[in-house]
Amino acid sequence: MPLKSAVYVEKGRFELAEGKRLEPQAGEVTIRVGYVGLCGTDLHVYHGNMDHRVCPPGVIGHEMSGVIEAVANDVEGFAAGERVVVRPLDYCGDCPACSAGHSHICHNLKFMGIDTAGALQSYWTVKARTLHKLPANVDLRRGALVEPLAVACHDVARARVAAGEKVVVLGGGPIGQLIALVARARGADVLISEPTAVRRAYAANAGFATFDPATGDLAAHVMDWTGTKGADVVFEVAGVQATVSAMTDIAAVRGRICMVAIHSTKPQVDLFRFFWRELELVGARVYEAVDFDAAIALIASGQVDVDALITSVHPIDQVQAAFETLDSPDPGMKTLLECEA
Amino acid sequence: MPLKSAVYVEKGRFELAEGKRLEPQAGEVTIRVGYVGLCGTDLHVYHGNMDHRVCPPGVIGHEMSGVIEAVANDVEGFAAGERVVVRPLDYCGDCPACSAGHSHICHNLKFMGIDTAGALQSYWTVKARTLHKLPANVDLRRGALVEPLAVACHDVARARVAAGEKVVVLGGGPIGQLIALVARARGADVLISEPTAVRRAYAANAGFATFDPATGDLAAHVMDWTGTKGADVVFEVAGVQATVSAMTDIAAVRGRICMVAIHSTKPQVDLFRFFWRELELVGARVYEAVDFDAAIALIASGQVDVDALITSVHPIDQVQAAFETLDSPDPGMKTLLECEA
Repeated sequence: MPLKSAVYVEKGRFELAEGKRLEPQAGEVTIRVGYVGLCGTDLHVYHGNMDHRVCPPGVIGHEMSGVIEAVANDVEGFAAGERVVVRPLDYCGDCPACSAGHSHICHNLKFMGIDTAGALQSYWTVKARTLHKLPANVDLRRGALVEPLAVACHDVARARVAAGEKVVVLGGGPIGQLIALVARARGADVLISEPTAVRRAYAANAGFATFDPATGDLAAHVMDWTGTKGADVVFEVAGVQATVSAMTDIAAVRGRICMVAIHSTKPQVDLFRFFWRELELVGARVYEAVDFDAAIALIASGQVDVDALITSVHPIDQVQAAFETLDSPDPGMKTLLECEA
Repeated sequence: MPLKSAVYVEKGRFELAEGKRLEPQAGEVTIRVGYVGLCGTDLHVYHGNMDHRVCPPGVIGHEMSGVIEAVANDVEGFAAGERVVVRPLDYCGDCPACSAGHSHICHNLKFMGIDTAGALQSYWTVKARTLHKLPANVDLRRGALVEPLAVACHDVARARVAAGEKVVVLGGGPIGQLIALVARARGADVLISEPTAVRRAYAANAGFATFDPATGDLAAHVMDWTGTKGADVVFEVAGVQATVSAMTDIAAVRGRICMVAIHSTKPQVDLFRFFWRELELVGARVYEAVDFDAAIALIASGQVDVDALITSVHPIDQVQAAFETLDSPDPGMKTLLECEA
């Protein structure tokens, strides 16, 4: 079978092309790619909104799993045949953020699969420092969910969710559902607020309390749910004015609000409420190595079941159709492309 | 000398009236009031903006010092003749906030001097649980600065300011200057951004770096001041859109922003920046008992010199003139009224 790559050519168009297999250079490893998950950022690329970073034509994709094919001579700790996932962050190691130990939000961060070539190809050559090994009981399909689950682990850690706390997730897309799963695994009681019926159904199937903010008073509901206290933790995952308004309304005194959403405009925020209730807002971006370790452990231990979130798997040849489905009214939760590792 | 009280009668008008001396009931102490400082909230009352809480005619005032005159039989640990200050918070002890140990932001909090009678009178009868003793080397004039200094101690504690950090204070009014003093006492390097020349002069006299955001690029200046890192901690003390915009521009990766200002509108906030740089916003309101203890210790040890902030002292008879001066272009930093203890 010839090597393949899915190339983003221009707004709304992917093309299948012949792939390459680059030999690993110093510090690098070449991976035979297994599965690649598609996410909101990839859809953003498909919509043509990130051409300034992708510089098409280009190969994207960053939620992946695969098997090590070749390892450079100087790489220690990894060997051909090992099943791995990639933490797709390329940092400079030299800026104030890296110096302070926050290399995941390096001032000069290159996000692999956006700023540099991604995983939607038969072979992907990356720095060995980006790898995490998969245990025997985590197959490659589940492995492709490690990256988005690591996002959720990072969000839940940033918000310091503790056992017994009441947590509200504003937005029931894939990341919102994963945050809910991780928060529950940490012992929290979770409510997902989501206006789309199909997403509420996924949440309900996973055993979460749900609420439709389009047809009810979310703040009143949360006050009732928490015995007038308000939510200990709120995750803002939707990125719209309505959820930004809700986040301050529903938080308890000293409640923590975690900003997961990527806001392209500057919404109005009730800063009085931050003062009045001593609220806390923490931004959370991508993940650190510990979050990948935590995500792998949650899948391996069975504490988080990601299988229910995988709603479709297509061969890489169907990349264009897969993105067209993502753009439809019912995109499902998580679409994987199989790269034939 | 007859007992006096300064009564807020209506928007823009105080009247001197005969005061009363209430006997302390169970749990109470009656204080002969020494000095009362006037603050921004008192000015807000004077402007008629808080009539719904003050319910005029009423006696306001909450930054005070005095000498215990009488103590109820059941009160332990306090005696006539002791010099004290009042932490003017009356909490319910029963709501979710009180139950969680945050009685200073009780859901049913009554702020003494606004929601209940205040200190602008010869004698003030209060609950003994609100009292903190002044050490011998803190006179009653300085004692009147304990309450606003406790606000600053609370703000600096909420922002977790550490030695060696770069701190920017947005707004050089009395609270901004006090925050700067406390942050410096904690070992931070402090810059005050303030558009008013007279306030910048106070800050410069106190030894702080200053910046005029009206005539320069604050973000560029802070990046230069911090070697491109950005500020470790930002205090938003001004409460306007310009400082809300600045706070996210100047903060370092993982920088903490403390919301001290009381926002009467909902400004636009750069939430993308919270995500991108993993910023943190913490609201801070009033103070806890430990903040009063910290404020008294900072004055007693000489680590914070509040004398320079006391720009005028008037007898209580001149209450109307004192508020008119507060409303003028050069209100000074801190005005005290002497209540003749």
